[in-house]
Amino acid sequence: MNRFKNTKSIQQGFSRMVLVISLAFVVMPITAFGLEALPKVPPVPKDNPMTRDKVELGKQLFFDPRLSVTGTVSCNSCHNVMASGTDNRPTSFGVFGKKGGRSAPTVWNAALLSVQFWDGRAASLEDQAKGPILNPVEMGMPSEKAVVDLIASIPGYASQFKSVFQGKNPVTYDNIAKAIAAYERTLLTPDSPFDRYKRGQKKALSKKAVAGMQAVESLGCTGCHTGPNFAGPAMAVGEGFYQKFPVFPGSVYEKKYNLTQDQGRYDVTKKSDDKNVWRVPSWRNVALTAPYFHNGSVATLDEAVRVMGKTQLNQDLDNQTVENIVEFLNSLTGTFLVQKMPQLPPTPNRHTTEKDGL
Amino acid sequence: MNRFKNTKSIQQGFSRMVLVISLAFVVMPITAFGLEALPKVPPVPKDNPMTRDKVELGKQLFFDPRLSVTGTVSCNSCHNVMASGTDNRPTSFGVFGKKGGRSAPTVWNAALLSVQFWDGRAASLEDQAKGPILNPVEMGMPSEKAVVDLIASIPGYASQFKSVFQGKNPVTYDNIAKAIAAYERTLLTPDSPFDRYKRGQKKALSKKAVAGMQAVESLGCTGCHTGPNFAGPAMAVGEGFYQKFPVFPGSVYEKKYNLTQDQGRYDVTKKSDDKNVWRVPSWRNVALTAPYFHNGSVATLDEAVRVMGKTQLNQDLDNQTVENIVEFLNSLTGTFLVQKMPQLPPTPNRHTTEKDGL
Repeated sequence: MNRFKNTKSIQQGFSRMVLVISLAFVVMPITAFGLEALPKVPPVPKDNPMTRDKVELGKQLFFDPRLSVTGTVSCNSCHNVMASGTDNRPTSFGVFGKKGGRSAPTVWNAALLSVQFWDGRAASLEDQAKGPILNPVEMGMPSEKAVVDLIASIPGYASQFKSVFQGKNPVTYDNIAKAIAAYERTLLTPDSPFDRYKRGQKKALSKKAVAGMQAVESLGCTGCHTGPNFAGPAMAVGEGFYQKFPVFPGSVYEKKYNLTQDQGRYDVTKKSDDKNVWRVPSWRNVALTAPYFHNGSVATLDEAVRVMGKTQLNQDLDNQTVENIVEFLNSLTGTFLVQKMPQLPPTPNRHTTEKDGL
Repeated sequence: MNRFKNTKSIQQGFSRMVLVISLAFVVMPITAFGLEALPKVPPVPKDNPMTRDKVELGKQLFFDPRLSVTGTVSCNSCHNVMASGTDNRPTSFGVFGKKGGRSAPTVWNAALLSVQFWDGRAASLEDQAKGPILNPVEMGMPSEKAVVDLIASIPGYASQFKSVFQGKNPVTYDNIAKAIAAYERTLLTPDSPFDRYKRGQKKALSKKAVAGMQAVESLGCTGCHTGPNFAGPAMAVGEGFYQKFPVFPGSVYEKKYNLTQDQGRYDVTKKSDDKNVWRVPSWRNVALTAPYFHNGSVATLDEAVRVMGKTQLNQDLDNQTVENIVEFLNSLTGTFLVQKMPQLPPTPNRHTTEKDGL
């Protein structure tokens, strides 16, 4: 059974979305999305309003492997929007077969997070998008200038940037990131069984899922996994919601899954309190994003639930409780938009980079 | 300017296509497509009829990186249908950063070729699809059984194979290849300026392009680049149309672009006559598929034209002639179908392979 339910295309839904976003910012501040329902629209920064053309441009860039030094790795390579928004690998392969250090987080609903990356080092989707392109083990481009020169040299991009961003030098690294972020803000997964349940369709959740929901509340999981994205309470953009992992050190899982080698947010802040501290990840679509945790060390969701019970709450969860929680987490799998494939602007008559040998 | 023109989706056009294919096989044998117009339908083998569900399944498989041992390389990685149907690289990167030996040919209109691969070693799209999945420098899967076990373990695939192929063991390596081939048969690019010109729209070609067309005929290029796909005369499936390259040895280009190191079809047949012999590649969309030749050694189309003039016809083409021919070749860029993205069936609650460390 294909879990992705086809409802409507981004194209069809887009106009309504832009309207709703406009209204939302009149009547509702970012922090008032409510506690549990998935918002229909993401927060949109004032300096990067969403337009249809910008989203389409961003989609092309998101899928364009020419943004990597080898021409083989696109944003979508590790954040596959035809699937879970991840690459479902422990850690990703970038250019030249190089491996990254952390598991790729999903891009679906990332627009609802107040900070990006596992360690929260980017305040916005715009900031996030600038990282992997230049990271030597990800897309490996040598400099912002190299990226800008490449994109500006592709006629179809040059004209689209001119139309979307105006001005004398519309192709900038900032604008590349803005377009990608605008596309990513369309990647929400509404209408999960849980959301339908919350709207009053009591049959949308099985008894087991309801038992799982009660368990995560009574155990205290929702102390962190709260809010509409189950990733923490609503925060201002750039203000992250973090937690230590493990809270209770010394469990059998800590060694088995090598949970503490990567020091997480400490690498960003160098504050000792931030050792092994991480942005609280979302539960939305978590059933589809195995393997789990920052190092992708745990292959199954039931084991991930057991690990979290022990390391964060010092609880040895029994099998029935684990099963119920897994059932509940599956009810957070939303509806994935049917999308048109982008068509990447060509460079007729020449190799884009005119470099051989890479 | 985006050269890809959006006309209609595969979904919209599909029913009509199936109907046309059915009619075509009543009234028209495979070899009677005519000399120059791009056929509206491809030849379809009797043992792999096209159905909507099979094409949709094949599209999912074509885009599914889980068909590689690392979960990172799909058919689309090297045959990017959001672009030219190639990766626009000299040679491709497969799993673990390994590099292939030959430049990836385009998948667009490959359904019109009578043999596949640069050396013609596969008689059909079905045969071709089976190769890269198991090739250690491409997708690197260890065995047909490993591929079949993997696909059968994904619930959404298991049910689709059952519905599409019926029988007790619908997930077989043959059926995986059949589904992929069925999808690839939808990848035609009709309605190029040249096709419109041939249908009577005399303004569809510029004067320069017409001069280029006359040049390729008078010079003798169309001795090989003939037929509707400009890849040779109509042949029975499995019967290839080949040519030596270079025909005239010893040119400056031969050394500069290392044209003879790879012995081409000789590696398949071990016949000395087949040394440096290659399947004649199509001119359709050739303006978009740089870099050129089996080793991707030539970065621009004008240089490729010069090389071919010298090596195949012993002609030093002047700049004006080269320019005209390039203009004509650009008129063979067709219309690329707008496609919906596939949605890849997930493996809820678990990592697909449950392998770490790769």
